[in-house]
Order: sequence, then C-alpha cells, then structure tokens
Amino acid sequence: MAKPCIICVAITGSVPTKADNPAVPITVAEQVESTHEAFEAGASIMHAHVRNDDGTPTSDPDRFARLMEGVRKHCPGMIIQFSTGGRSGSGRERGGMLPLRPDMASLAVGSNNFPTRVYENSPELIDWLAGEMREYGVKPEIEAFDLSHIHQAVAMNRNGRIPGRLYVQFVMGVKNAMPVDREVFDFYVRTMERLAPEADWCAAGIGRHQIEVNEWCVAAGGHTRT
Amino acid sequence: MAKPCIICVAITGSVPTKADNPAVPITVAEQVESTHEAFEAGASIMHAHVRNDDGTPTSDPDRFARLMEGVRKHCPGMIIQFSTGGRSGSGRERGGMLPLRPDMASLAVGSNNFPTRVYENSPELIDWLAGEMREYGVKPEIEAFDLSHIHQAVAMNRNGRIPGRLYVQFVMGVKNAMPVDREVFDFYVRTMERLAPEADWCAAGIGRHQIEVNEWCVAAGGHTRT
Ligand SMILES: [Zn+2]
Ligand SMILES: [Zn+2]
Ligand SMILES: [Zn+2]
Ligand SMILES: [Zn+2]
Repeated sequence: MAKPCIICVAITGSVPTKADNPAVPITVAEQVESTHEAFEAGASIMHAHVRNDDGTPTSDPDRFARLMEGVRKHCPGMIIQFSTGGRSGSGRERGGMLPLRPDMASLAVGSNNFPTRVYENSPELIDWLAGEMREYGVKPEIEAFDLSHIHQAVAMNRNGRIPGRLYVQFVMGVKNAMPVDREVFDFYVRTMERLAPEADWCAAGIGRHQIEVNEWCVAAGGHTRT
Repeated sequence: MAKPCIICVAITGSVPTKADNPAVPITVAEQVESTHEAFEAGASIMHAHVRNDDGTPTSDPDRFARLMEGVRKHCPGMIIQFSTGGRSGSGRERGGMLPLRPDMASLAVGSNNFPTRVYENSPELIDWLAGEMREYGVKPEIEAFDLSHIHQAVAMNRNGRIPGRLYVQFVMGVKNAMPVDREVFDFYVRTMERLAPEADWCAAGIGRHQIEVNEWCVAAGGHTRT
C-alpha cells in the first residue's frame, strides 16, 4: 500500500485579520466550523492559533481549551496541534496551554529572522518547551525555518529530548528567513532521508506559494501543510 | 594561472582567554605581533576582535584604531577586517568602529542560536550595519551561520544593500547553530555557485574542526579562515 499523505490545516494562523480576508476564522465557534469543513474534506491534523475578541493573537489556555473541546466534538479522531509560536506570546507563556495535552504542538528548535524582528527561541526556552511536551505526552511538530533547525531536531531526537519519530515542517517564504526555493526543498528532503529516514515531514509555502510547495511535498513523498 | 587562495587569520576571537590558551593575543601589542607572524607566514586578511585589559570582549573604537595603526605599520598591504559580531557589544555599538574605515568588516545577515543564547541580528540592525559599511567604504565579510543567510546575502547584493562582489564565510561547528557537516558544506558551495558564481567564499570550522574545514575549502576552490 502506498504511504498515506497527511493533510494538516492551519485554519487561522497568527497574522491575517478579517480586514485581510473576511473568511479567516477568529472566534472559537468560527474556528471549530472551519476545522469541521476541513475535516470533512480530508484533513487529519488541525494546527491551531487562538485569538482575542479583537482578533489579536494570544496564547490564552482557556481559548485553547474551548477550541479543543469544540474540535473533539465536531471532528472525532482529528489530531489537534497547538501552536507554541512566538507571535502569540513571549517566553514560557508560549507553552502555557501544553498541560491541556493536545495531541501535538509546534516546536521551534532554533532562532531566525522574521520580516521586522528576530524570532527568538533561546536554547533554554526550547529545552523547556520540549520538556513540557514530554511531560504532557504532546508530540512536537518541528518548525524548521532554516537548515540547521533540521540538524538540531535530529540531535534532540538522538539524545532523547524529542522522543519517538520526528515530525518536521519546512517553513519557506517568510521574509528574512528561508525563501521558497526548489533546490533548498530538495536538499531538506535529502537531509531528512540521510539523518532521520524514519521521520515524517511536510512543508509550508507562505501565501501564494502554498499550493506549489504542497505539490512538491506530495511528489516527494511528504505530507502537506497550510 | 590558478586562482590564489586567501588565508584570513582570526588571531584573537571573542571567546578564548589566557586561561584557555596562554598564547591567545589579548593586548593590542600582542595582537600586532601575532598578526605580523601570520602575515610573514602568508596570511593576507586579519580578522580582528579587541579586548579590554581584563580580557573581556569589547567594541571600543579606540582599541580598534590602535590595532589598525599597529597592523598597518608592521604588515604593509595586509587587509584589515574588524568584527561587528555580537559577543563584543550590543546593537549599534557593534558598528561604532566602522568610521575608522577598515578594509573589511564582518556582517551577520540573519539570526541564529549560540551555545547559551540567541545571536540577535534584527533586520533593522543588519540594514544599519550594511549602510555604515557602504558609507565608509568597508567591504563586508558575510557570516553565514545557516543556509538562509547565504540567500539573504545574495538578495542584499542584488538590491544594492551589499554592493560589489560578495565575500561569504560559512561558519560551522558552533553549538546550537550549523554543525560541521560535509554534505552541508558541499551544498553551501553549490548554492554559491548557483546564486553568486562570481563571489568569493571561505569557511571556518570551530576549534578542532578548523584544519579539516580549511582542507575542504582549498579542495573546493574557496579561501581559508581561522
Ligand atoms: Zn502556526
Ligand atoms: Zn461542526
Ligand atoms: Zn570573529
Ligand atoms: Zn612586528
């Protein structure tokens, strides 16, 4: 049997607002229904960011709890992945929802630049987030914004800080981080095959590159991510 | 004629102390004589960090001025490259010596992790340092701690923020950044050949990897760096 391709949907993200796109789900009710539609269309992982009532990003555990409750009810069996990304909070605030024991959570393992600032993930914060994920049985999705992040994830896997089979996302197209580049994508895939052949991986191209990068993933044997 | 290989010596760095190695040149007089020895042995670029009297790193322009004066006198024609790295100061302090118009200066173009902290190079600071280098006619040595930094350097070269022919250093072996890895080195070289075929590049392997990485450089047509 061919290896199944996982579709992971990031329904909200932390950046777009209703002003950018009226269809962006902001309230928990909107997020649950958007996830439900994706679930019915075949998505099996939902990657979640939550928002305040005014649309700004937050790491509020209560919002995450309500979202998890709604998704569990409307989408039985769907894998719930919370974002611990740095646009929704700072420092350990970013992992304050991990005690809710989502199935997965995103985990940065290095630092890089974003369009207007440094995406700061200190070694100490990374270790703390990885430790919380081990404690609460949460499987990390590694967010690889650059090549060394793949090497770092493999090192953390080998020394037990990230147990089990790695799940890595290549993020491409964020300004001042890694651009969308086919040669880089192919090298990322070869690096995974060389250093962690059992691992799963997917890739996300930001904005207009989304479909293109997902097509590369499907053709190369990876999973897909919006 | 074969392409000449440039030897660039980093005589002091910002980390080692006399306690680590009594031969590390700390005072300006020691630095000038260490540079003089390397110059006589064939080095043509000197990469400089300066230190306070107690050995701690600093970005003090007066120290850099005295070092430049000594090196100009003892090593006529040697190319002087100042470090603007983040271990010797923070923010714009790191570029306070650029008005001295050294021939070259190091320039980070992205952020990454160091052994115990984030190496923070915000987009704003990078643009400011690059602008100072243009203003004072200082040629940057790009410090590529990760693959995306090469892409960023090429983008800055294409839009004029880094004029002229790129000079890129691949830094390998810093804990929590890119490890020393032959496949990565080869891909870095292929990336340079693809995106900036006219550029010059070198690589540094930290500590015990220094000779090994320099041998890779020489064999692949690059320059060398300690
Ligand atoms: Zn996300
Ligand atoms: Zn529903
Ligand atoms: Zn240096
Ligand atoms: Zn001398």
